[in-house]
Amino acid sequence: MQFTAQQIAGLINATIQGNPQTVVSSFNNIEAATKGDLTFMGNAKYNEALLKSKASIILIGKDMVPDQPLKATLLVVEDAYAAFATLLQIYQQMHVEGLKGVEEPAFVAESARLGENIYIGAFTYINNRSSIGKNTKIYPGCYLGENVTVGENTVIYAGVKIYHDSVIGSNVIIHAGAVIGADGFGFVPDKAGIYKKIPQIGNVIIEDDVEIGANTCIDRATLNATVIKKGTKVDNLVQLAHNVVVGEHTGIAAQVGVSGSTQIGAHSMIAGQVGIAGHLKLPERLVVTAQSGVSKLSDTPGQIVSGSPAFAMRDHLKSNVFFRRLPELEKRIAELEKALEKSKNG
Amino acid sequence: MQFTAQQIAGLINATIQGNPQTVVSSFNNIEAATKGDLTFMGNAKYNEALLKSKASIILIGKDMVPDQPLKATLLVVEDAYAAFATLLQIYQQMHVEGLKGVEEPAFVAESARLGENIYIGAFTYINNRSSIGKNTKIYPGCYLGENVTVGENTVIYAGVKIYHDSVIGSNVIIHAGAVIGADGFGFVPDKAGIYKKIPQIGNVIIEDDVEIGANTCIDRATLNATVIKKGTKVDNLVQLAHNVVVGEHTGIAAQVGVSGSTQIGAHSMIAGQVGIAGHLKLPERLVVTAQSGVSKLSDTPGQIVSGSPAFAMRDHLKSNVFFRRLPELEKRIAELEKALEKSKNG
Amino acid sequence: MQFTAQQIAGLINATIQGNPQTVVSSFNNIEAATKGDLTFMGNAKYNEALLKSKASIILIGKDMVPDQPLKATLLVVEDAYAAFATLLQIYQQMHVEGLKGVEEPAFVAESARLGENIYIGAFTYINNRSSIGKNTKIYPGCYLGENVTVGENTVIYAGVKIYHDSVIGSNVIIHAGAVIGADGFGFVPDKAGIYKKIPQIGNVIIEDDVEIGANTCIDRATLNATVIKKGTKVDNLVQLAHNVVVGEHTGIAAQVGVSGSTQIGAHSMIAGQVGIAGHLKLPERLVVTAQSGVSKLSDTPGQIVSGSPAFAMRDHLKSNVFFRRLPELEKRIAELEKALEKSKNG
Repeated sequence: MQFTAQQIAGLINATIQGNPQTVVSSFNNIEAATKGDLTFMGNAKYNEALLKSKASIILIGKDMVPDQPLKATLLVVEDAYAAFATLLQIYQQMHVEGLKGVEEPAFVAESARLGENIYIGAFTYINNRSSIGKNTKIYPGCYLGENVTVGENTVIYAGVKIYHDSVIGSNVIIHAGAVIGADGFGFVPDKAGIYKKIPQIGNVIIEDDVEIGANTCIDRATLNATVIKKGTKVDNLVQLAHNVVVGEHTGIAAQVGVSGSTQIGAHSMIAGQVGIAGHLKLPERLVVTAQSGVSKLSDTPGQIVSGSPAFAMRDHLKSNVFFRRLPELEKRIAELEKALEKSKNG
Repeated sequence: MQFTAQQIAGLINATIQGNPQTVVSSFNNIEAATKGDLTFMGNAKYNEALLKSKASIILIGKDMVPDQPLKATLLVVEDAYAAFATLLQIYQQMHVEGLKGVEEPAFVAESARLGENIYIGAFTYINNRSSIGKNTKIYPGCYLGENVTVGENTVIYAGVKIYHDSVIGSNVIIHAGAVIGADGFGFVPDKAGIYKKIPQIGNVIIEDDVEIGANTCIDRATLNATVIKKGTKVDNLVQLAHNVVVGEHTGIAAQVGVSGSTQIGAHSMIAGQVGIAGHLKLPERLVVTAQSGVSKLSDTPGQIVSGSPAFAMRDHLKSNVFFRRLPELEKRIAELEKALEKSKNG
Repeated sequence: MQFTAQQIAGLINATIQGNPQTVVSSFNNIEAATKGDLTFMGNAKYNEALLKSKASIILIGKDMVPDQPLKATLLVVEDAYAAFATLLQIYQQMHVEGLKGVEEPAFVAESARLGENIYIGAFTYINNRSSIGKNTKIYPGCYLGENVTVGENTVIYAGVKIYHDSVIGSNVIIHAGAVIGADGFGFVPDKAGIYKKIPQIGNVIIEDDVEIGANTCIDRATLNATVIKKGTKVDNLVQLAHNVVVGEHTGIAAQVGVSGSTQIGAHSMIAGQVGIAGHLKLPERLVVTAQSGVSKLSDTPGQIVSGSPAFAMRDHLKSNVFFRRLPELEKRIAELEKALEKSKNG
């Protein structure tokens, strides 16, 4: 697919400086871009890169247009980054545009309800009483158990498995291999230490505008619901256990694990490989740095914590400095002891 | 599905106090329950919640029946929790009852042997010489390689991949997306640092009554078998490397990683995100707290260990207290040094 | 399948001591081997095990042949381990030999290009403009999006999901459930803290001779490419984020997470559960021990680092020794303080 500077200017309301017939077919950053690429210039620190750039078209903020002429055609806009993001979105849209209808062979139960303009890929299985909202696209090789509800404009990529009774909102994206609604890890040992399974009969609710990463697992609740609230973004290989509630507009990075029944506050940021203990009610706007282990925190919103067990990041950094110097600290103690011994004997 | 108090009393041998025709259609805990819910009261600390509960039916231990009358219908039993678990099991059973036969299109090799009363979902692939025991249910989109053996009454959820020669016991549950029997991570670097693959020709054996979590990976052995022994429960996203042996009735929480050839003793509990080094023979009834890293331990059964590298939890807690106070300890050392200097000069 | 000592000797150019008609049907290590097993003896420390071994055939280095006669038939070679590895490879080869053609029902788009002698399993989906090189085998239940390129002699196991535009080299192995090319985790919060998605329009490039573990996730780049270079081996459940570049012949163990835009140098070894921060350019031949967290390192090639945050392993070991002794160090400080107090008062 090729586009001219003129066509692109029309999409983002830009002024053209240079040849309106310049053609591009792909995107790149300002340093790596070559002939045929469109790039953007949104930060003065790339001034030098701008002058050297081999891109064919450059989106540029109106206050960053250089005095000297460039080989590239410029598209001058208010906010180059925002205009670039808009173009990326249009470009990506084209990939899914063509997906429509139920591809053969798919398995759609008779009692399933399918909205208008949906796509269901081959080898996808939609069980009894499930319902799919309009414009939703379910890629090949997915499994939706009984009574699963999916909203509108949602995209479920290949090989996603969704157990019975799960509720998925609108404008949700679920990446390949994610598992929604498997049994929570609930067992009671008897006197001989043999585990009896506690049936998990709750469900999972994923609200609107959520994104779930590849191979992430969100377990169904024991009785009520595991809930991922509106606008939250979850990365790959994350484990969210039964009865967890994640607040609105929270970011959870890859390989995080959250234990059963914990509640994460809205607008929090949980970095990669963090572990969070069970049965906690965490405050809003919490920030947890990578690899930390959260077991108990105060109610204060907006905390930043580090370490395992996690405490204030500022204090943790200080402790870490001295951890590194521990051999030296011990030497200082030993010298004090020697001096004391000497003064006693002296 | 709706049930009357009378129907339920029959299932769990309960005495009815109140209207035998009271109807419920779902379960909930005592605080969240509303009209139409059944709940249970098994602990005196919920006495207040009992009086306020809006549940329609309450299972209750005979020694906890309150003096004052309640709006709810009571079902009086010996052990309310056990009776509740029984009802949950009956409820869950109903979800799988209907699953029978081989759904079209599935791929079942001619040489595969299928027991009585099995279910094989659409898009599931059963390769040559595999055998499936009676009453076993394999959900849609699974893959069983050549010569895989599955016992009786086992449930394999959607999208599970089981490589050739794996042996799965009876009454096993494997959750969606788990991978059983992929190659162990075995390579030898040559002099130039280029890795040569060591073929992994062993298999995986999963004994009876084991549960395996979603997207968990259990690698095949290099030569013999990776073994998960009877009654062990493994959570989601766990990595069990080649030649690992996990003892009976052990619990392994989410995101744990166990390196090659390590043996975990029976009745152990490994908490979330723990890492265990390779080639260890760990004692029975070992408890490892979350995020710990086990590299070497004594033979003592029943140890509780923490930290990375892990040592006795009690000692680790103490060290952690002082880790947090390290800046203060350094200050105390500095003051001692100042005092010493002063006394020298004084 | 059964083989005689004579047949095996021919494959690895060995001299036979004993009965050339001895029959074996499987492999095992020298201690566990029984009748019908072939084993190998490559290390003098197994001299005792050699004398006791119940294996039917033993591969043995010519300098390790014992004086006394053994019941087993010996196959005498230069390098017993290398000869054994060769036999394992031949044995494993037999498992995939039979796989040929496109199994029904598979979904292969008309515009897809299939090389000679390929295998595409049932329920596998190959989308528009994808191309599969000769001798490549794609197991059942895989998904290849639009414009995916796969080289020659590559094996893609069951249930692998590969998003559009990914490029997979030759002699690559990808294990079951891996997800290649899902969207990178890229969002910008607006002033209200609501995340806007940054479209991820780059791709993933996996070079020749790479192995990717089960359920591992490699995200597509935002604009250019996430690249796994030639000969690198990646274990199970690993997360490689958008724009990451992993150098040649590097080993990455299970459950490692590498954040966005980081570059890992060639011939590095990253142990299990390590986390690596984003936007780092790491030196060649880096060794990171298990569970470490890498946030900033010097450029020195060949470093060995430990801990979170990681620093030189040697120093980290020392600090860890004193971490364990922190309660004792505090006691020594307290005693010094007492002595000082006493000397002041005395």
